[in-house]
Amino acid sequence: MSTLDDRKSIRKYLETDVDDILLRQLLRTAEQTQTMGNLQLYSVVVTRDREMKTKLAPFHFNQSMVIDAPVVLTFCADYNRTTLWCENRHAKPGYNNFLSFMNAATDTLLYCQSFCNLAEEAGLGLCYLGTTVYNSQAIIDLLQLPQLVMPVATITLGWPAENPPVSDRLPLDSVIHNERYNDYSSALIDRFYEKKESLPENKKFVEINSKETLAQVFTDIRYTKKDCEEMSVGLLAALKNQGFL
Amino acid sequence: MSTLDDRKSIRKYLETDVDDILLRQLLRTAEQTQTMGNLQLYSVVVTRDREMKTKLAPFHFNQSMVIDAPVVLTFCADYNRTTLWCENRHAKPGYNNFLSFMNAATDTLLYCQSFCNLAEEAGLGLCYLGTTVYNSQAIIDLLQLPQLVMPVATITLGWPAENPPVSDRLPLDSVIHNERYNDYSSALIDRFYEKKESLPENKKFVEINSKETLAQVFTDIRYTKKDCEEMSVGLLAALKNQGFL
Repeated sequence: MSTLDDRKSIRKYLETDVDDILLRQLLRTAEQTQTMGNLQLYSVVVTRDREMKTKLAPFHFNQSMVIDAPVVLTFCADYNRTTLWCENRHAKPGYNNFLSFMNAATDTLLYCQSFCNLAEEAGLGLCYLGTTVYNSQAIIDLLQLPQLVMPVATITLGWPAENPPVSDRLPLDSVIHNERYNDYSSALIDRFYEKKESLPENKKFVEINSKETLAQVFTDIRYTKKDCEEMSVGLLAALKNQGFL
Repeated sequence: MSTLDDRKSIRKYLETDVDDILLRQLLRTAEQTQTMGNLQLYSVVVTRDREMKTKLAPFHFNQSMVIDAPVVLTFCADYNRTTLWCENRHAKPGYNNFLSFMNAATDTLLYCQSFCNLAEEAGLGLCYLGTTVYNSQAIIDLLQLPQLVMPVATITLGWPAENPPVSDRLPLDSVIHNERYNDYSSALIDRFYEKKESLPENKKFVEINSKETLAQVFTDIRYTKKDCEEMSVGLLAALKNQGFL
C-alpha cells in the first residue's frame, strides 16, 4: 500500500497483455473485502475483445484508453445472482428497491477499490472512468445486464507506459470534521483551496479555457448543471429499468 | 495488502486508543485514491466522544462496537464544500441532483475502502456498518450535516481484541463474466452456493433460526422485503432533504 503515496491514474499502457492468472488472482484476493451479510452483491464484466472495447468506447466519451488498454473491467452492482439463489431455495427475495441498489453499489465500489489497490501494488496502472453512470443504459444494453444489475464503475487496466506527476490533494483538515460537521466559512474555503488554485497546471487550465477562476472550469465546462441534470434523468431511468426504483 | 488475504471484520477492541497522528496519517494517505475531477467529494466525521457514540449507537441498531470502539468514522458524500468553493469563485454550481450524489457517493466509498486497506495493513481492526443508509436522516441530524452532504458509510475502528475466522467467499467464477453477462442457470446457482451452504456455521445459522434454507435466513430475517422497502422510502426522503433529489 506504500504505492498509494505516489499513485497516479495511468491512461497509456504497454502492448504487453495482462496475464489472466494474475488478473484472476487480484480479483480473487479483492473478494476478501467486507461485504453486506457476506452476500457479495457485485459482478465484474471483463472486456478484452477489441470489438467489444470499440463498442464500449463511445459510452465513455471515446477516451482512447478504453480501446488501448488490454483489459477493461465494468464493476456492476448485482442483486440478480442473490435473487436467483433465493428463488431457487424457497426464499422470497425483496431486493427490487432503492435501498438494495445502494447496498449493492456500496459492496461493488468497496470491492472495486480493493482491486485497484491490489492491482497498483502489483505494478499495474489503471484509470477509473466516472463516465459509467453517465451512460448506464447503453452499457447495460451492450453488456446484456439483466434486471437488478447496474454498472457503477469502469476501470481500464494495463502495464504503465507513462509516469505522470502525482496530482494535488486538498489539505486533510478540509475533509475531516471532529464530532460534528463544521461548515466552511469563506476564509476556510480560501485557505483550503489556495494551494490547488496556485498550482501552475491549474492556472494554465484556467487560462486555456478562458475562464476567470478554476471553479468556473468545473461549473462551465467539465461538470455543468445542464449535463448533471440531464444525466440524472438518464441514470434514474436506467435504475428504474433495472428494477431498482 | 497481503493482509487482505486473511482479513476479518473486528468487532471487539482493546481499550488502547488510536493515536490521532496515526489516524490522520492513514486518512491523509487515503486521499491519494482516485477522485472525480480531483474534487474529493467527501468528508469524514470523526467520533471519539463517548456521549456522541452513545447517541450514534441506536442509529446503528445498538451494535455494541459503536460505543466500545475508540473511534467511529462516518464517511459522507459531500458536494457542499465544492459548491461553496464555486459560489465563492463566481462559478455557478449545479450539483443538487442525483447524478452528483452518485458521483460523490462513489468518491466517498473508494476513499473509505482505501482507508480500510491502509488501516488493516497498520494492524488496526475495523467493522463496516451497513446501517448508515438505513437511518440516514437521524445521522444527518446528529452530525449536523448540511445540504449536499449525505452519510454513506460508517467504520468502527480500534486495535483488535479478537481473532475471528476468515469468512467464506463465493468462487471467483460466480462474480466474473467474460465480455458479456452470463446469466445463472439453476445448475450454476447450485454449484456456486454449494460450499457456502455446506459450511457448519451456516448450517447452524439455518437451524437456530428454524429455517429450511440459508437463503430464507436472509429473506425472512436479515434483509426482509418489508424492511428494504420501508428503508428505501426513508433513504430517498433523506436524499431529497439533503438536496440531491
